[in-house]
Amino acid sequence: MDRFRPFLFSLRADAFLVTHLPNVAYLCGFTGSNGVLLVESSGATLFTDSRYSLQAAEQLHDAKVSIVSGNLLVAVAERLKRRRSIHLAFSPTQLTVAQKLSLDAKLGERCKWIDGGNTIERLRAIKDPAELAFMREAAKLIDSAWKAGVRQIKPGVSELSVVAEIEYAIKTAGASGPSFETIVASGPRSAWAHARPTSKLLRKNELVVMDQGAILRDYCSDMTRTVFLGRASSRIRRMYHAVLQSQEAAKFAIRPGVKAGDVDAAARNVLKKHGLARYFTHSTGHGLGTEVHEMPRLGRGDESLLEQGMVVTVEPGVYIEGLGGIRIEDDMVVTSNGAESLTGATREFLEL
Amino acid sequence: MDRFRPFLFSLRADAFLVTHLPNVAYLCGFTGSNGVLLVESSGATLFTDSRYSLQAAEQLHDAKVSIVSGNLLVAVAERLKRRRSIHLAFSPTQLTVAQKLSLDAKLGERCKWIDGGNTIERLRAIKDPAELAFMREAAKLIDSAWKAGVRQIKPGVSELSVVAEIEYAIKTAGASGPSFETIVASGPRSAWAHARPTSKLLRKNELVVMDQGAILRDYCSDMTRTVFLGRASSRIRRMYHAVLQSQEAAKFAIRPGVKAGDVDAAARNVLKKHGLARYFTHSTGHGLGTEVHEMPRLGRGDESLLEQGMVVTVEPGVYIEGLGGIRIEDDMVVTSNGAESLTGATREFLEL
Repeated sequence: MDRFRPFLFSLRADAFLVTHLPNVAYLCGFTGSNGVLLVESSGATLFTDSRYSLQAAEQLHDAKVSIVSGNLLVAVAERLKRRRSIHLAFSPTQLTVAQKLSLDAKLGERCKWIDGGNTIERLRAIKDPAELAFMREAAKLIDSAWKAGVRQIKPGVSELSVVAEIEYAIKTAGASGPSFETIVASGPRSAWAHARPTSKLLRKNELVVMDQGAILRDYCSDMTRTVFLGRASSRIRRMYHAVLQSQEAAKFAIRPGVKAGDVDAAARNVLKKHGLARYFTHSTGHGLGTEVHEMPRLGRGDESLLEQGMVVTVEPGVYIEGLGGIRIEDDMVVTSNGAESLTGATREFLEL
Repeated sequence: MDRFRPFLFSLRADAFLVTHLPNVAYLCGFTGSNGVLLVESSGATLFTDSRYSLQAAEQLHDAKVSIVSGNLLVAVAERLKRRRSIHLAFSPTQLTVAQKLSLDAKLGERCKWIDGGNTIERLRAIKDPAELAFMREAAKLIDSAWKAGVRQIKPGVSELSVVAEIEYAIKTAGASGPSFETIVASGPRSAWAHARPTSKLLRKNELVVMDQGAILRDYCSDMTRTVFLGRASSRIRRMYHAVLQSQEAAKFAIRPGVKAGDVDAAARNVLKKHGLARYFTHSTGHGLGTEVHEMPRLGRGDESLLEQGMVVTVEPGVYIEGLGGIRIEDDMVVTSNGAESLTGATREFLEL
């Protein structure tokens, strides 16, 4: 909160309305599923409902709590109505049209809206040492949960039962859960870059993409490995090594001051040399923290500059209809002069 | 889609912009994580990105696909710009201020916005026989996953490891995953109505609230049971039976034509007789379908009328700081003259 409150001044705002729950949690510690934070220069107030009164009392820092029955934004409006006029900052990407209309109906001309942009997301993008320690643990945990999944891989086992093993390992290791729906996609389905696992059985001579993450003490990890069931053809081995080289090139490009888009270009250029660029159908990576997709985005042409303390995934992939897909993903923290990998599972091409 | 398109006429709209993914899935079958559906009287178009081209080809019905690189709403705006003017229906609760601004910037005066309300949610609230068959299966599955969790309950086991067992059972039974973060909350933490599981160990003489659900073929179940570790005091037994009676009364109140708020009142009145009403800090239930919270809401004073084919949870609970919490929840389908429970796990007070 101390790092955030100065932004009220630079935005010329009397208050900042925080509706996005990960931002609420970041600023005041509250992790319930219903909460709105109003940050005023005099202090911050969390509005939540009675289900969360005990939890809020335990979790809150730098904020008072107001327990509300009914719509939280109505209570926020009642509070703001005490002022003759208010310059209210908000994030347009995080307030719905209906929410804004309901506040306008209560506050009328009294309220001047100020685009607060992604102020909080920018703060969240830079992780402090305590946050990095949590993320390192979340990354270690996913390394070992992946291994538990690999041990199950054999013909006749379903994608979903491999997912069940991975997520069981995630939870028994103390994580609160997976950071997204674990992907195990085999054979032709591995060419769906965001396949959901099904009851399809693994078969010999199939690629298996395994994409998994864990939430440990509120911080996420996110790692992908691709293995082969049986002996791979030389074409598939070449593809694998092209993706691995592409990932290496992107990792090597990361350091403070570099544009996010340049990291993406580094990955893409390697695949171009192998004639595979057109099969790389997504961006190279994304920020990671309490949410599994955060700032910055390592996408084509992205101009944002990397800074020390950011954590990003690096995950090039190629997806060829009929043949299958290969993706390799690690979590990298930007250091003072380069980048360090938080995930450490082997990237050897495993033929099982 | 056939049931939906007539609403274009009643709304006097040329098109409906569908941004909420469960609504997109309901109308055209697409279940990817990035998609916008534009329903025009001449037909519907799904806008998505290249990661999903194969998946869209497999899943889509009643819609064409447009593969977009970049922002989907920009592509929608380009498409709409071909018209001289457009009356565009949308859901204000599902479009952000930023999304609306970006469309306004491209379309200007040409676009007249029409509040489409919760048209699609109302359609989704009534389940057809095929949907009910899926939901019945999802409910059966959660009954047995809960039992797998109960078998793990003993002193010294952590909340998270019970969660791991339940979710393992969910996935090995063929579900795509839990329908929300499974809750196992013990002792004082059971008094948090929406506790997240932790590494806290279960101890003798504690209440354990277990709230779990599964997604099977895209449809959710949601069931809560509360058990006791050891022999409960007579006070806790009385509380348990009050909650059970409260749930029975609410279930008995359900039939077509009844107000949602009357079902809530039925649950609340029983707890009032037991002097426990002030510990019942949430509403009695919610609709259930492809989302775990849907229409209708069984909340205090809610005027919406129940209709045959709706599926709702009935889940009264009491939460007493220091002592613990008790909640019992089943999934009920509204039948022609009453209601039928989809979940069937025992509601006997288990002392383990």
